[in-house]
Amino acid sequence: MSGIKIVTIGGGSSYTPELVEGFIKRYDELPVRELWLVDVPAGEKKLQTVGALAKRMVEKAGVPIDIRLTLDRREALKAADFVTTQIRVGQLDARILDEKIPLKYGVIGQETNGPGGLFKGLRTIPVILEICRDMEELCPDAWLINFTNPAGMVTEAVLRYTNRRKVIGFCNVPIGMKMGVASILGVDQARVHITFAGLNHMVYGTDVYVDGENVTDQVIEKLCSEQSGITMQNILDLGWEKDFIKALGILPCPYHRYYYQTKTMLEHELEAAEKDGTRAEVVKKVEAELFKLYEDPELAIKPPQLEKRGGAYYSEAACNLIHSIYNDRRDIQPVNVRNNGAIASIPDDSAVEVNCVITKEGPIPLAVGDLPVAVRGLVQQIKSFERVAAEAAVKGDYHLALLAMTINPLVPSDGVAKQILDEMLEAHKDYLPQFAKVTT
Amino acid sequence: MSGIKIVTIGGGSSYTPELVEGFIKRYDELPVRELWLVDVPAGEKKLQTVGALAKRMVEKAGVPIDIRLTLDRREALKAADFVTTQIRVGQLDARILDEKIPLKYGVIGQETNGPGGLFKGLRTIPVILEICRDMEELCPDAWLINFTNPAGMVTEAVLRYTNRRKVIGFCNVPIGMKMGVASILGVDQARVHITFAGLNHMVYGTDVYVDGENVTDQVIEKLCSEQSGITMQNILDLGWEKDFIKALGILPCPYHRYYYQTKTMLEHELEAAEKDGTRAEVVKKVEAELFKLYEDPELAIKPPQLEKRGGAYYSEAACNLIHSIYNDRRDIQPVNVRNNGAIASIPDDSAVEVNCVITKEGPIPLAVGDLPVAVRGLVQQIKSFERVAAEAAVKGDYHLALLAMTINPLVPSDGVAKQILDEMLEAHKDYLPQFAKVTT
Amino acid sequence: MSGIKIVTIGGGSSYTPELVEGFIKRYDELPVRELWLVDVPAGEKKLQTVGALAKRMVEKAGVPIDIRLTLDRREALKAADFVTTQIRVGQLDARILDEKIPLKYGVIGQETNGPGGLFKGLRTIPVILEICRDMEELCPDAWLINFTNPAGMVTEAVLRYTNRRKVIGFCNVPIGMKMGVASILGVDQARVHITFAGLNHMVYGTDVYVDGENVTDQVIEKLCSEQSGITMQNILDLGWEKDFIKALGILPCPYHRYYYQTKTMLEHELEAAEKDGTRAEVVKKVEAELFKLYEDPELAIKPPQLEKRGGAYYSEAACNLIHSIYNDRRDIQPVNVRNNGAIASIPDDSAVEVNCVITKEGPIPLAVGDLPVAVRGLVQQIKSFERVAAEAAVKGDYHLALLAMTINPLVPSDGVAKQILDEMLEAHKDYLPQFAKVTT
Amino acid sequence: MSGIKIVTIGGGSSYTPELVEGFIKRYDELPVRELWLVDVPAGEKKLQTVGALAKRMVEKAGVPIDIRLTLDRREALKAADFVTTQIRVGQLDARILDEKIPLKYGVIGQETNGPGGLFKGLRTIPVILEICRDMEELCPDAWLINFTNPAGMVTEAVLRYTNRRKVIGFCNVPIGMKMGVASILGVDQARVHITFAGLNHMVYGTDVYVDGENVTDQVIEKLCSEQSGITMQNILDLGWEKDFIKALGILPCPYHRYYYQTKTMLEHELEAAEKDGTRAEVVKKVEAELFKLYEDPELAIKPPQLEKRGGAYYSEAACNLIHSIYNDRRDIQPVNVRNNGAIASIPDDSAVEVNCVITKEGPIPLAVGDLPVAVRGLVQQIKSFERVAAEAAVKGDYHLALLAMTINPLVPSDGVAKQILDEMLEAHKDYLPQFAKVTT
Repeated sequence: MSGIKIVTIGGGSSYTPELVEGFIKRYDELPVRELWLVDVPAGEKKLQTVGALAKRMVEKAGVPIDIRLTLDRREALKAADFVTTQIRVGQLDARILDEKIPLKYGVIGQETNGPGGLFKGLRTIPVILEICRDMEELCPDAWLINFTNPAGMVTEAVLRYTNRRKVIGFCNVPIGMKMGVASILGVDQARVHITFAGLNHMVYGTDVYVDGENVTDQVIEKLCSEQSGITMQNILDLGWEKDFIKALGILPCPYHRYYYQTKTMLEHELEAAEKDGTRAEVVKKVEAELFKLYEDPELAIKPPQLEKRGGAYYSEAACNLIHSIYNDRRDIQPVNVRNNGAIASIPDDSAVEVNCVITKEGPIPLAVGDLPVAVRGLVQQIKSFERVAAEAAVKGDYHLALLAMTINPLVPSDGVAKQILDEMLEAHKDYLPQFAKVTT
Repeated sequence: MSGIKIVTIGGGSSYTPELVEGFIKRYDELPVRELWLVDVPAGEKKLQTVGALAKRMVEKAGVPIDIRLTLDRREALKAADFVTTQIRVGQLDARILDEKIPLKYGVIGQETNGPGGLFKGLRTIPVILEICRDMEELCPDAWLINFTNPAGMVTEAVLRYTNRRKVIGFCNVPIGMKMGVASILGVDQARVHITFAGLNHMVYGTDVYVDGENVTDQVIEKLCSEQSGITMQNILDLGWEKDFIKALGILPCPYHRYYYQTKTMLEHELEAAEKDGTRAEVVKKVEAELFKLYEDPELAIKPPQLEKRGGAYYSEAACNLIHSIYNDRRDIQPVNVRNNGAIASIPDDSAVEVNCVITKEGPIPLAVGDLPVAVRGLVQQIKSFERVAAEAAVKGDYHLALLAMTINPLVPSDGVAKQILDEMLEAHKDYLPQFAKVTT
Repeated sequence: MSGIKIVTIGGGSSYTPELVEGFIKRYDELPVRELWLVDVPAGEKKLQTVGALAKRMVEKAGVPIDIRLTLDRREALKAADFVTTQIRVGQLDARILDEKIPLKYGVIGQETNGPGGLFKGLRTIPVILEICRDMEELCPDAWLINFTNPAGMVTEAVLRYTNRRKVIGFCNVPIGMKMGVASILGVDQARVHITFAGLNHMVYGTDVYVDGENVTDQVIEKLCSEQSGITMQNILDLGWEKDFIKALGILPCPYHRYYYQTKTMLEHELEAAEKDGTRAEVVKKVEAELFKLYEDPELAIKPPQLEKRGGAYYSEAACNLIHSIYNDRRDIQPVNVRNNGAIASIPDDSAVEVNCVITKEGPIPLAVGDLPVAVRGLVQQIKSFERVAAEAAVKGDYHLALLAMTINPLVPSDGVAKQILDEMLEAHKDYLPQFAKVTT
Repeated sequence: MSGIKIVTIGGGSSYTPELVEGFIKRYDELPVRELWLVDVPAGEKKLQTVGALAKRMVEKAGVPIDIRLTLDRREALKAADFVTTQIRVGQLDARILDEKIPLKYGVIGQETNGPGGLFKGLRTIPVILEICRDMEELCPDAWLINFTNPAGMVTEAVLRYTNRRKVIGFCNVPIGMKMGVASILGVDQARVHITFAGLNHMVYGTDVYVDGENVTDQVIEKLCSEQSGITMQNILDLGWEKDFIKALGILPCPYHRYYYQTKTMLEHELEAAEKDGTRAEVVKKVEAELFKLYEDPELAIKPPQLEKRGGAYYSEAACNLIHSIYNDRRDIQPVNVRNNGAIASIPDDSAVEVNCVITKEGPIPLAVGDLPVAVRGLVQQIKSFERVAAEAAVKGDYHLALLAMTINPLVPSDGVAKQILDEMLEAHKDYLPQFAKVTT
């Protein structure tokens, strides 16, 4: 059958209209025949709303993409070419707990590389591994493109606990950094090239080029002298300590603030939680508003309000990734893949976020040698956290979960780790069947 | 000339009587001909007191060790066989600042791997490198045995910034851990063998054997069930979170509490500083009392009160190390040396603390493969800190010093790092000539 | 000044017309302003002949490339953008000796990775390093693109003994392999993608893709069943042992025959040397004929006879490389660069031949992980040979040269190595001033 | 039960009396309760002869070692403390073929790292793995000490294809080198310490110390100036090319002659085979004479003639190894173990021959960093050969066997490799059941 079959698991997400828009825009080069939006019963209403909007969008655009809505994942996966995952096990309410419980103990929740991220991983990894098992059976040659956070930990788990090699973890942080740098320098994005290396939400821009010329020092200088501009909408632009950025000499990502400015970020989160609720609560409101818009039967385009959401450009960039694989475009994109020697101090078989050439055979990581000495420790610490957490998720092992929690750089002691862990295991127990033996 | 010439730089230290006792006890196998005690003018009074006691000790013991006191380091170094360094640049008053200034900002000082250790390193490394230069000229074949903290950072600096390969960093932490384990298990120390691997004050016991049988799990079990007993007198026996130790599965060292129990340790230090003064202030009192004892012309042995000092067994163990080198005893001792592949994730040319066979050619590290995943991050973080700090010390580079301070796991933000750094650079400026251009 | 300045050292080479043709064809995208052809006095006549042809070619093509001929290398290098080196120290007569002397001792000469290559390296490396020194002064930002064999050893020497990082070693072997595979499969070259990894003239195609699908096994099967077709015109198509290729499971390069079929290749070379002279003697005749053609004042294109020469597509491909750098084309080309972790068992700072993305910042190697176990030994052996040989070339050290000769896999004993070495040092002494102290 | 139970598989070997002598001499410290000599039916007669001699030896010595003879391996293994293996699958007649068949094709047989060694490995590895399986069941805590050649390949196979970690490969080559060096220097062996590193029969002495002083250069000088003295009785003392040894700068082992002097060794082997038969044929005669001696009912000691056999000191040294493990002596002995990072360019999980501290927990390898550049290639080539050969042995895979044969440095071409392989597979087919599907 000609044309591409795409399956989006978590299709009821508020991001989906951007994905649909991306496929519409690229239709000539990337002929999507079917786009299956899959969700769980708890998300059915959203799925119907988003699905209806998607159908209106393709109709208005006049492209023959067949939008299919289903709760039957296995049915959808049959003979898929690309599977994207943007799931949220436990919905936004679970994320609220991921953020709130740690805050009670004076600890940042951080839903990706922090204590919250540990729990998001514990809930998500078993489901993703199940999807991998289904794919082995139903569409073994398809690519799995995962947007679900914690994307680094999830990619690590897939690489380590399944035989699937066609997996790519995807994140919009590097795209945001590139846009920020372009804007700081006042040049067009297309002229900017950044050497990205590190882990998901722990990625550095080690060199910045404009038209092939290395301008890293210039960018560092600019970063020091003004509000950085390189940030995500969901992380406060607190500004870096000028001399620290100069000392670092490379570009941190917005999430680095949690680690290099822990105290300030914590203070801010506590204040914000008091005032507006946690980030998840804010997102929940934004989402409710978005869905209200989506329900409008007159709406047949992606509403511009979607861009305010933290994940802006996520789906756009994901379309671009699929486009490059399908058409063997061989452009350079930073994604999460098996390291394979690209970063020296990370094991070959671990996931890293690194510039890759995107070919029809998949992403091939560019060798970056070693990271600067000063950042190797933090990167290794997050990698250790991800590996122990992934193992805990797969085995449902209480002690591994405690170990992951304690070695997380945001957690200030073994005692606090245990308190947070115990409360969160209890709070999330419906989504953590693998820990059932422990929590009862 | 027959017999061994030993030079002890910082000879006026309160530890020296233990060293003298060690040489007396081993005289038959380790014939020390001359023991030169060297100090700086500021330490001359202590040097005279300790030197007089040393002379009474050898006389009483009836061994022909010639005790020589001098302020002329170069004179002392000529044709030395072993040089030990136990210096304290800026004396205890500097250490008081190392501990107090960070505490003002809510940060543990930690005079070895913390912000205090950074400043101890910045003051100490240039002096040690000067000693190395003198040694190249005056006693190129001598062994440099450094007890001066931060011993890991100092060894790193010697390996990286001099051509000296005959250098050993020495610490009593592993000895204390071994004693503690023996006592927990109720067996004689000689039957216990621990695989030590890591960095100075960041060393783990990865396997514990009694009579060749692996009893690690048993020791972990005991550690979880009672007050550990494996601690140093200068670190509170706060007890570990039982489930965390079980999760870790290997033996942490007492200094690990600063990193795995940061919050608790900080609270305790703040409280203790309020009540008894910082650890340095307590030590200062203990030292004053010791020197009062030393001045007693009737005293001709090491007074038993010395053992209460944190560095107990330091000098005893150092004598043992010299004994093993001199007599090619080939026993296994944990010391700080060039890694050379012994620990997989640390570069070959960095210093590690690891079990070595002590031969006449020097210590040869035993290959341990890689550290457990869960601890690689923290170890790498301290190694990154040590490397950046050593480079800052050598170059007098403000930004490198700030970088070292910020990446230290005890420091909660770049802003706080800068505040502590700036205040400490000013407070210690007399001992940091290499930073003169910055601090004026 | 707009337009590109290119300097070709060894400009009197018979390959130059292909280079000129390449620049003419690409003029619209790659606007070469000046092409300087540089040669040594011994090559002046050839330079004039080739230069005159080049001028006729650009004139006929109607492109404003200014062809400049000179014996003054430093004059030419000023403000160059790209410097290509295709020199032959000692001309073809030296190569004849490189091949003939080893054969006298029953050893294949092999002018790149064999005993002949050792001597080519000893003669060439000092000259290339001199060019690098000139470039630092006269055109520090220019790219050095070296075609001169032994290209791997030369790149290793530049990386290890100069500060130049803008160096690329270039070879047409991978291009030939790709053409061969395309022809075996009967598909267009553009659809074929091969993962190249190894060293110069010791490169493997570890995976072959057509349209993104892995067809390695299919290619292996074809290679086993017929005359391979993947060969160079200057290496006999002897055919591989079918079961060996199957066992190997990856694509060897034509030069691998010297190592996997040493006996057969030696027998053939002896026979051929008897009949037609060595390869160098054959090439000399071919060159004489080419120069006769070049002298024809009516000739204003690259004569088709040039393609029969072993280096076919060399210059064409080099133009392509320059094109990709200049225009930031980011296509994948296999070149010789600093490894930087791309191949696991080769040190980061050694040269490897590996697929790279060619960007305006230069080639970035694609991470390939480790080579298959079965080939690591041979690859490491040639890398050891290259490193020891490069050091011998730089230091003029007799024992290092002997060591390189003895560890070369083609040389059957230390005694034979010494005989060949001594005779060759004497034969080439005019071009080996660094060994003067030894050979006199 | 007090006392040690030792099981010697291949107990009918002519070496056994040395082993018995070793246990007798050490009885006070190493109280062997039972020594089980196990053999296969084809070796029963030898077993009876050797066993009777062993019984006379212990009786004469007056030590209560119970000598037990059996053909029932499983019976013997029950509750063993140490299992030594000195088997010869196919007896000496198979070794004769290992040497003769390659020679027919102008290739050295070399029964350990050459084509002969490949076949010895193919026959031996399945039997050793079977012994490992029996040990898991019958004596899981016992040490397996393997003397059977190819000892490196066998150790690799055990490490890679079983879960057994208590395995040590043992060889007398380093002992011979040490004796040779002591004799060259005219000092007592006990004063000599050599840093051994490499693989079995491919080991180098990278540094030589006398009384802790590095005398490597002096030894190299001596080696160059006279007949080396560092050789094994079964390898001709052909003498090294003086300048080559100087160039190498480290101590090769006697087996290195096969690789650095391939031509000379081959010529000699051809000549010797003509005159006295291959080495195996000579050994067969020597063994026949030894067994004649052993049959003498008056003989109750190890006959001095045994020392002329190539494996002199093998059993003596093995007793020493067992002694050191049993008594936790912590002396340094070079043995074959899991690398674990000791040699940088060899994977952690491969077998290497390297200095180890011998403790009750087993041998712990000393970290040696990396081998000199010049030898890494050859070492890696033999390691690749060992790994591919071990995999071929386990899987009975014809193509892997051909790959191993072709990449062996002694084999001059893929075609010759196939001829030798095919003839040897046929010749040994009774001992290669795993290849049955192929050879019929």
